Amino acid sequence: MSEKYAHKIVKRVRVRIPDVPGAFGRLAQEAGDQQVVLGDVELEVISSQYMTRNIIMFFNDQDHVTRAMSAFKKLKGYRIIAVEDEVLRIHRGGKVAVTPAVKMETLDDLRMIYTPGVAQVCKYLVNNPDQARTYTSIGNTVCIATNGSAVLGLGDIGVVPGMPVMEGKSVILHDMGKVNCVPLLVDSSDPKRIIDALESLAKTFSVIMIEDIKAPLCFQVEQGLQKRVDIPVFHDDQHGTAIVILASLITSLKNVKKKKEKARVVINGAGAAGIAAAKLMLNYGFKDVIICDRKGAIYKGRKENMNEYKKEMAEITNLNREKGSLADVLCKKDVFVGVSSPGLVSQDMVKSMNKSPIILALANPVPEIWPKDAESAGAAVALDGRTVNNCLAFPGLIRGTLDACASRITDKMKIAAAETIAALSGKKDIVPNFMNPLVHKKIAAAVKKAALKK
Amino acid sequence: MSEKYAHKIVKRVRVRIPDVPGAFGRLAQEAGDQQVVLGDVELEVISSQYMTRNIIMFFNDQDHVTRAMSAFKKLKGYRIIAVEDEVLRIHRGGKVAVTPAVKMETLDDLRMIYTPGVAQVCKYLVNNPDQARTYTSIGNTVCIATNGSAVLGLGDIGVVPGMPVMEGKSVILHDMGKVNCVPLLVDSSDPKRIIDALESLAKTFSVIMIEDIKAPLCFQVEQGLQKRVDIPVFHDDQHGTAIVILASLITSLKNVKKKKEKARVVINGAGAAGIAAAKLMLNYGFKDVIICDRKGAIYKGRKENMNEYKKEMAEITNLNREKGSLADVLCKKDVFVGVSSPGLVSQDMVKSMNKSPIILALANPVPEIWPKDAESAGAAVALDGRTVNNCLAFPGLIRGTLDACASRITDKMKIAAAETIAALSGKKDIVPNFMNPLVHKKIAAAVKKAALKK
Repeated sequence: MSEKYAHKIVKRVRVRIPDVPGAFGRLAQEAGDQQVVLGDVELEVISSQYMTRNIIMFFNDQDHVTRAMSAFKKLKGYRIIAVEDEVLRIHRGGKVAVTPAVKMETLDDLRMIYTPGVAQVCKYLVNNPDQARTYTSIGNTVCIATNGSAVLGLGDIGVVPGMPVMEGKSVILHDMGKVNCVPLLVDSSDPKRIIDALESLAKTFSVIMIEDIKAPLCFQVEQGLQKRVDIPVFHDDQHGTAIVILASLITSLKNVKKKKEKARVVINGAGAAGIAAAKLMLNYGFKDVIICDRKGAIYKGRKENMNEYKKEMAEITNLNREKGSLADVLCKKDVFVGVSSPGLVSQDMVKSMNKSPIILALANPVPEIWPKDAESAGAAVALDGRTVNNCLAFPGLIRGTLDACASRITDKMKIAAAETIAALSGKKDIVPNFMNPLVHKKIAAAVKKAALKK
Repeated sequence: MSEKYAHKIVKRVRVRIPDVPGAFGRLAQEAGDQQVVLGDVELEVISSQYMTRNIIMFFNDQDHVTRAMSAFKKLKGYRIIAVEDEVLRIHRGGKVAVTPAVKMETLDDLRMIYTPGVAQVCKYLVNNPDQARTYTSIGNTVCIATNGSAVLGLGDIGVVPGMPVMEGKSVILHDMGKVNCVPLLVDSSDPKRIIDALESLAKTFSVIMIEDIKAPLCFQVEQGLQKRVDIPVFHDDQHGTAIVILASLITSLKNVKKKKEKARVVINGAGAAGIAAAKLMLNYGFKDVIICDRKGAIYKGRKENMNEYKKEMAEITNLNREKGSLADVLCKKDVFVGVSSPGLVSQDMVKSMNKSPIILALANPVPEIWPKDAESAGAAVALDGRTVNNCLAFPGLIRGTLDACASRITDKMKIAAAETIAALSGKKDIVPNFMNPLVHKKIAAAVKKAALKK
């Protein structure tokens, strides 16, 4: 994947260019001098002397945009007509719609879809309640609810600014899983109120996904709501991330010829993703896992900066009660999994690890250590969140869950997803290509099978 | 509109018919003898001796289906292969989907729709909160929430069997209003719990519609929720029905050359629709309106079978304090509006009214009096719920409300909708054709204009 994805600002720049050979090359050269990466170029207008092109450009930050535009303006005969934010343009009007799955072309259609014909279906469902998933959209519909308190790497930005992420997941679920996903903004930070609201609505859906809710609120909502409803409650930040981490480790360990039972693992980050990853790995057969937070290794008996979820993890991880900073405990380990903050891992720390270390540095958008730096410090495998991304897991997982009419998403189903992802990775790649629909279909089939197995 | 819509059961009958001239005619004749109305006929298979046709047939009830099938089976050389419920078939899989409004064809697309690009939009919305309706789906999305307690003429059938109606309205809102409408099932009969849940979710939507919730719970939810949220709360059973009633009366009174200020009106039914219709009519300039319930005319000081909503109406309607049964008060009136139960109005009652009476008999699916019977008793205008249907009003009303970014749906906006519907009716028709998209566009434009007028 290209480094341009690390760029933070994408602009669609409309430029009027002289209609002479080499004129575009002159501009492209200047862009290169300004460290601007070019994307798609589209011809918009040709007049007698000029042509107007829309050029996608990638910048590091707003200052970079300003500097580059000043440089372009100095070029004689060129004119910047408009600089539009390309990402905003794509998101304009929202990214999802609620659309009919039936045609309504005649009054006959109307009278079957709506009154009076619809009453026949309502009555049928009164007498055949188990048919509701078949004769309504419920069987193929999930929701994804957020309160905007832990959005990507941005933190607690509020419920409305969290919407673009929910819509993005809805698009992915539709395109890769054929699932209807309704984004819901729940404007509260009170677990009881969030649980009450989602419980009231649960009959509308076959899975409730929660997303971008900060820890430990996310644990309270997930566990509290799951006790009250008979459909799965799924928190992708926890379990989707855990699945792709597990999948990546299955492939990576195989590549370096190490066994999960003997691999020594350090997870940095004791939030939603870190705790879920540790639990799933232990369940899968890993034996030696240490979780670190800001205060270093978590161990049984530690007093500082604990909560009930960390206490629970202190019982089942770090059985040797190692203490100390991340740098201390990473020494002589085989695997680093980072779900924490940018830049926390140095090349020296990688060098202190066992031979052929595996580095999954998943902090978003800037990892704990850039993969290139980890590799040059000796990492056998070094990946960041661009490769190890939960969008590889959740479309197939949710599709399989719906196909099985499952009432819970169990560890067996998650492990089936992880093993399938690992099995589908290419010879050189640790994970398969997200854009291949077959990948998601195979994950769904495996998850369904695991759900239906007694 | 054809009488076949009064039929309650629609079947798709697959029949193997001898491939000789007249064979289909023989079957059609038998269907006619059995009082079966035929719909679309579709040829499915032709073999050397037979052809297989799918025939849509309309029946009165299940006994009628059984009798007709026995008769068909006696025809030599014909074979009934399958009898499938046509309405159920159409509803299979549900009637709505949540679909992408953007393309995701490349990893570049993914990385703008989802991480890391989406973070740019999230940050933009943090700094520009007033742009949320533009850069998310919120600005074009409404919800329609029910608890299934007053579904069509079926009553309190439970929340899940109410779903097909919600989906039907969602289809109509999309096709005629270009509105995203999310159906929501709220599993509670407690007004506080329903209000709390919908308030928590309100930021997801630009209008909250409630639907098929019984009175007086619907009033409590509508009024209680509207106090707490800054977007319109709209109960179509009340206000949508009120708008189409008003629209029909505007046209009908004009046809019989009577004035709204002098027209004497009886509304039968003191539930959601009856009360809302009375209020809107009074606000529009009607002076003489009496509401009846099961116990007869509602008047100031009546003790029996009252609630706070009827008491409020007793203050502003029936200023002469007429008492007595529906038959008593209907005598010498100009307009009957029924939003009550089947068969409550006799031909004698119509004959007791003033000259050229107007009868809107909207009980669903069987009206207070069939239009034909009312006409033969002297009604100048006689319509039922097939013509005076709120699906004429709500798509344009909601579209106009969204286009105006209105925070409330006011009586001015409802009246603008009613006047537009009346203005668009043809010379012979009391209301315009629902299937004409232009009708809904013009309603939307009028509603928007009314919303923006100071």
